[in-house]
Amino acid sequence: MYRIGIDFGGTNIAVGIVNEHLEVLYKSSLPTKKDERSVDEIVADMATLCLKMVDKVGIGLSQVDAIGIASPGVVNSKTGVVEYYCGMNMNHYPMAAILSEKLGGYQPIYMENDANAAALGEVLAGAARGAKNALMITLGTGVGGGIVIDGKIYDGFNFAAAELGHTVIEKDGVPCGCGRRGCWEKYSSATGLIRMAKEEMEKCPDSAMWKLAPTLDEVNGLTPYEAAKAGDEAAKRVVAKYQDYLACGLANMVNIFQPEVLCIGGGVCGQGDNLLLPVNKQVMAEQYAKTSAKKTKLVIATLGNNAGIVGAAALGMR
Amino acid sequence: MYRIGIDFGGTNIAVGIVNEHLEVLYKSSLPTKKDERSVDEIVADMATLCLKMVDKVGIGLSQVDAIGIASPGVVNSKTGVVEYYCGMNMNHYPMAAILSEKLGGYQPIYMENDANAAALGEVLAGAARGAKNALMITLGTGVGGGIVIDGKIYDGFNFAAAELGHTVIEKDGVPCGCGRRGCWEKYSSATGLIRMAKEEMEKCPDSAMWKLAPTLDEVNGLTPYEAAKAGDEAAKRVVAKYQDYLACGLANMVNIFQPEVLCIGGGVCGQGDNLLLPVNKQVMAEQYAKTSAKKTKLVIATLGNNAGIVGAAALGMR
Repeated sequence: MYRIGIDFGGTNIAVGIVNEHLEVLYKSSLPTKKDERSVDEIVADMATLCLKMVDKVGIGLSQVDAIGIASPGVVNSKTGVVEYYCGMNMNHYPMAAILSEKLGGYQPIYMENDANAAALGEVLAGAARGAKNALMITLGTGVGGGIVIDGKIYDGFNFAAAELGHTVIEKDGVPCGCGRRGCWEKYSSATGLIRMAKEEMEKCPDSAMWKLAPTLDEVNGLTPYEAAKAGDEAAKRVVAKYQDYLACGLANMVNIFQPEVLCIGGGVCGQGDNLLLPVNKQVMAEQYAKTSAKKTKLVIATLGNNAGIVGAAALGMR
Repeated sequence: MYRIGIDFGGTNIAVGIVNEHLEVLYKSSLPTKKDERSVDEIVADMATLCLKMVDKVGIGLSQVDAIGIASPGVVNSKTGVVEYYCGMNMNHYPMAAILSEKLGGYQPIYMENDANAAALGEVLAGAARGAKNALMITLGTGVGGGIVIDGKIYDGFNFAAAELGHTVIEKDGVPCGCGRRGCWEKYSSATGLIRMAKEEMEKCPDSAMWKLAPTLDEVNGLTPYEAAKAGDEAAKRVVAKYQDYLACGLANMVNIFQPEVLCIGGGVCGQGDNLLLPVNKQVMAEQYAKTSAKKTKLVIATLGNNAGIVGAAALGMR
C-alpha cells in the first residue's frame, strides 16, 4: 500500500510517498516561489513531484491509494478547496480538483489545513501515536494548532477551528497580525521568543547574548537558550519568561480539552527536556484537574518536518 | 416516553420528568443542605423526588426510560461516579449506584457534569437546537463550560475537560480559586461583574450605582446595568469593561472551536440584546475566520434553570 502526502508551504512544496505504516519512503521538494507565479503553476509542480515519487518506488500512479495535500489557510476538507489563505491571496481555490486534472483525473485527493494534518500525523505515526484525543501545537513563526478528537481532525463547522495561537492570554497585550492584542502566539512562537530576547538585550548591554548575536538582527531562538546555558542571567530571564507564557497557554489548552496527549513541535522544541520538564511541571501545577488520576501527557513531536507529509498521506485512511 | 433529569446543585436538588420532546412536565426541588448531612442522605432525597415525579404523571418507575443526574465536579460518565467535587469534599462517590440502590435497583441511571449536561440540554431542546457542534458558557458564580461535538458531550480523556472559565486571558491578573491568576471567570462571571462595579463605585462616590446599592454588600449583577441605562457614566464604564472581557473570552472560544452555536447563559444574560448585540459585534470583529461565509451564531440560552434537568434527562438518549 502506498499513499502520497503533499506538504504545501509558503516556502517549499514537499512531497513524500509512504507505506502502510506511514513511513516516508522517499520525499522531494521544490521551492514554492509563491510571489513569482500563479497557484496553477505551483500545483503543476506538486503533480511533477507526485510522479517523481511513484517513479522512485517503481509503480504507477494507479497503485497509489490516495494523495493528500496539507495546505496553510482555511481548507474545506469536504470539497478540497482552499477557502482562504492570506499568504497567497487565495480565495476558494479548488486545489484538489486542479491537481487531479494535472494527474490525468487521479482520485482520491484529500485536503486539510497543514496544522491539522500535522496533528493527525503525530497521532497516527508520531509522538501522540494511539491517542484518541490529542492536540498539536507548533511553535514557529506563529503558534499553530491542530485538534484530533476520537481519532479524527476537528475543524469546526466552517473548517476554521483550532486557531489555538489566536487566543488572548494577555488582555490588551502585544498587537497581533490577526487584529487582536495579546494572542498566545505573540508570546510562545519562536518570533515571540526572539522579541523577548531582543528586549532583554536592549536592557542589558552586558548580556552574553550579545556575544552570540552581535547585532539584534542576528538573534534567533537559540540565542537566549545558549546564553542561559552558559550562565547569563539576562538570558535566563528570557527563557523563564518565554516558558512561563508557554506553560500558561498550554495549561489553558489542558483545561479546555484534557487531551490524552498534548504534543508540541517546532524549532524551539529542539531544546528537549531542557524546555519540556520545567514547562510540564508548571502546566501540571496550573491545570484544573489536579486530583485526576489521569493527566495529559505533554510530549515533543517526533515527526519534525515530515508531520505534514505523513498527516496529508493519512487523510481519508479510514 | 418519560425520562427523569436530576439537577444536583450546591444549593438545591431539582428533579424533573420530561416527555419524548424533552419538555419538562413536572418538577420539584429540595434544598441540598450540603453542609448539614451526608451525601447518602442527599441521594435519598433525589430518590424521593424521582418517586414524586412518577406519581405526578401517574406511572410506575418501571415506565421511566432512564434517569440522569447532572452533578458539579469531575464526573465519570462511564461509571456514574463523582470523581471529585470540592464543594462537598466528594471523592470517587458512586452516586448513580447509590441512587439505583435507593430506587430498588432501577436502571439505567446516567451521570454527567452539570455544565456538560446543560450544554447538551441547550443543543437538544434549547437555544442551540440542532447544532452538531456547540459550546455552552454559563456566567454565574464562575464561568462554566460545556462542549458538544458531533451531538455528543466532549469531556476529554479523564472527564475533566471544558473548564473554559479556567483559561487565563489576563496573564498575572486577578487571583483565581483554582490557583492561577487572570482566569476568564474572574472577569466574565457575575462575581467578576460585581467586583468591577464595586471597584468603580469606590473610585466614583457620585455614581448612580450608590443609589441602587447604598452599601457595597448590596451590589449585584443588575446594579451596573440599571445605572448605565439611567445614564451613569461610571456604570457605563463597568458594563463596557465587563462586556469587553466577555467578548475577548468568547472570541477565544470561537477561534478554538468555530462552533455552529455559542450559547451563553446565567443571570447576566437577562440583559438580552442589550448585552448580546455589542458582545457579538466585538466577537465577530476579533475572531480569526473573518472571511468565512459561515460564522458562529452567538445566542442566549433559553432553558434557564431547566437546562440541567433537560440535559440530565437526555443522557444516553441515543
